[in-house]
Amino acid sequence: MQLTARPATHAISEPLVIARGRFDAYETVEVSITWEGVTGHGEATPVPYFGESVADVVDFVSQAATLVGQDPFASERIDDDLRSVTGHHAAKAAIDAALHDVAGQALGRPVWQLLGLAPAGPHTSRTVPLRDPDTMARMAERETGRGFRELKLKLGGRDGDDLDRVRAVRSVTDLRLTVDINEYWCLPEALELLPPLSGLGVHLVEQPLPAGSPDGPELKRRSPLPIVADEDCHTLADVPGCVERAHGINIKLAKCGGIREAVRMVHAARALGLSVMIGCMGESSLGIAAAATIAALCDEVDLDGNLGLVADPWDGVCLIEGRQVLSDRPGLGVVRRGD
Amino acid sequence: MQLTARPATHAISEPLVIARGRFDAYETVEVSITWEGVTGHGEATPVPYFGESVADVVDFVSQAATLVGQDPFASERIDDDLRSVTGHHAAKAAIDAALHDVAGQALGRPVWQLLGLAPAGPHTSRTVPLRDPDTMARMAERETGRGFRELKLKLGGRDGDDLDRVRAVRSVTDLRLTVDINEYWCLPEALELLPPLSGLGVHLVEQPLPAGSPDGPELKRRSPLPIVADEDCHTLADVPGCVERAHGINIKLAKCGGIREAVRMVHAARALGLSVMIGCMGESSLGIAAAATIAALCDEVDLDGNLGLVADPWDGVCLIEGRQVLSDRPGLGVVRRGD
Repeated sequence: MQLTARPATHAISEPLVIARGRFDAYETVEVSITWEGVTGHGEATPVPYFGESVADVVDFVSQAATLVGQDPFASERIDDDLRSVTGHHAAKAAIDAALHDVAGQALGRPVWQLLGLAPAGPHTSRTVPLRDPDTMARMAERETGRGFRELKLKLGGRDGDDLDRVRAVRSVTDLRLTVDINEYWCLPEALELLPPLSGLGVHLVEQPLPAGSPDGPELKRRSPLPIVADEDCHTLADVPGCVERAHGINIKLAKCGGIREAVRMVHAARALGLSVMIGCMGESSLGIAAAATIAALCDEVDLDGNLGLVADPWDGVCLIEGRQVLSDRPGLGVVRRGD
Repeated sequence: MQLTARPATHAISEPLVIARGRFDAYETVEVSITWEGVTGHGEATPVPYFGESVADVVDFVSQAATLVGQDPFASERIDDDLRSVTGHHAAKAAIDAALHDVAGQALGRPVWQLLGLAPAGPHTSRTVPLRDPDTMARMAERETGRGFRELKLKLGGRDGDDLDRVRAVRSVTDLRLTVDINEYWCLPEALELLPPLSGLGVHLVEQPLPAGSPDGPELKRRSPLPIVADEDCHTLADVPGCVERAHGINIKLAKCGGIREAVRMVHAARALGLSVMIGCMGESSLGIAAAATIAALCDEVDLDGNLGLVADPWDGVCLIEGRQVLSDRPGLGVVRRGD
């Protein structure tokens, strides 16, 4: 099989601001794999938090052909071989997605169907970036008008205004709200803020404390809201450790390395009584399509990374009444716009 | 889709004797599902231990068409709907196998390939029934000569002769040995017997204590041999509870209800650091083929249920150098002999 990697910059209509930083565009890598005349695609979203970069992805993909081998259906063996190299989760996820795309096209069936699933899961949340309360309220009002059913508010401002942010948003929308702290609270802050947030109808909180915080178990015992682990949960090996500190996990392909590992994590989470969210990074419809193939296995969906792009190069995921719905086309079901 | 169920009696060349009983023939049910001109098959092996019978399977299958619906690819939805009815695991496993057979045939690919796996896993063990030490030694010698790489000795005789059984077998063969107690030891007996069994080169012990025994955790702490849970572990929900009492789990399709649940259990076990065995009941190559599709995900394989049949009605699983190897034919890859 032939592998190629091509960096892509996606301009976004407004910056994504979260507690730990700001993104003014999304830098990703398109990975293409050709096998017997069929070409499949996947998108890598290198995670700076893991020390990954676009250059690393291109480098990894250019050396991965030997590990991938010649049979796109041998996905367990390929997955094992790719995992023999540590790190590079975003690159591995893109290779895994492209292989699923190849296999689905070769069989003439959408990947979601080959996985025994449906073309859509629950409603996706729409992210409202971390800004001042008035700005967030204005954005929330706008997204409510666009037909979303759930908003995810980025908090962790460290300016004492997090509660005002949620109050301001709640004053303009009745939508279901979640809050994502991206590790930026400490235990006393969490214990102070979670009860009033619960009173405002927030229904879950994502990663309130730093990953691995020794306060995690105490917060789980005392929290009035379900806690979802994100920075605390990357791969299958992390799932059991989340039981003491969270009620659910946020699975992202760029963290875990692909659809195959993500499915493993879903099942381990179910066995342990954890709820499952599928999340994303800033990426185009190509990356979102890969994650959406398993959305039907999840309780919560946070797949809006493609919605703020000025010009999404890919077509094949449709936002319909608040759900990200995959096409019936074979493979991942996405095609390059203009092709 | 059209579902039919047909009871089948498989004569066996010698009785299967285990601690809790004796089988002089295997009673199973062949389930067939027809969709758009394609017919898939699966085999139900009702488990008397769960109060299941051939008549129950036929009855369940005859009423399952509504739950199954019209799309053989919608396997997650079908699995959910079948699970809304409690029990009937053997019948559900047969329906699940037949649906996998239909889907594979419709796509022109073997099920093992659609699951991203290989056509074979590790060597299968060969069961030596619970008899007197000399008889077991004679049987072990014969099976060694047939090219098996591992023997599973059925113990739990409650006559004080279990150690003599293993000594007698060890005197005639150098093969890897496991022992299966089927719940028939108590804690003091296990603590007395496991050290000498370890000295005889036995490499694991299956279900030494009754399911749910309060002594399970103490035995795990003190056992010199890895313990595999069988009667303690039926479905995904049982997997976390095995951590305190076992080092691994024995997954059987007839216990868990099919390939889909079995895969979930593999992943949960991996996350929890448990080893995985795939086992079987007394069944023909039709049932063995379904289990063998996921053997490549497992550490231990115990799929010899078809090998003692006087006349196996199905062809498609080949014992090659001690491994059960699936064919390259589409679906489960088995065909009725004579067809």
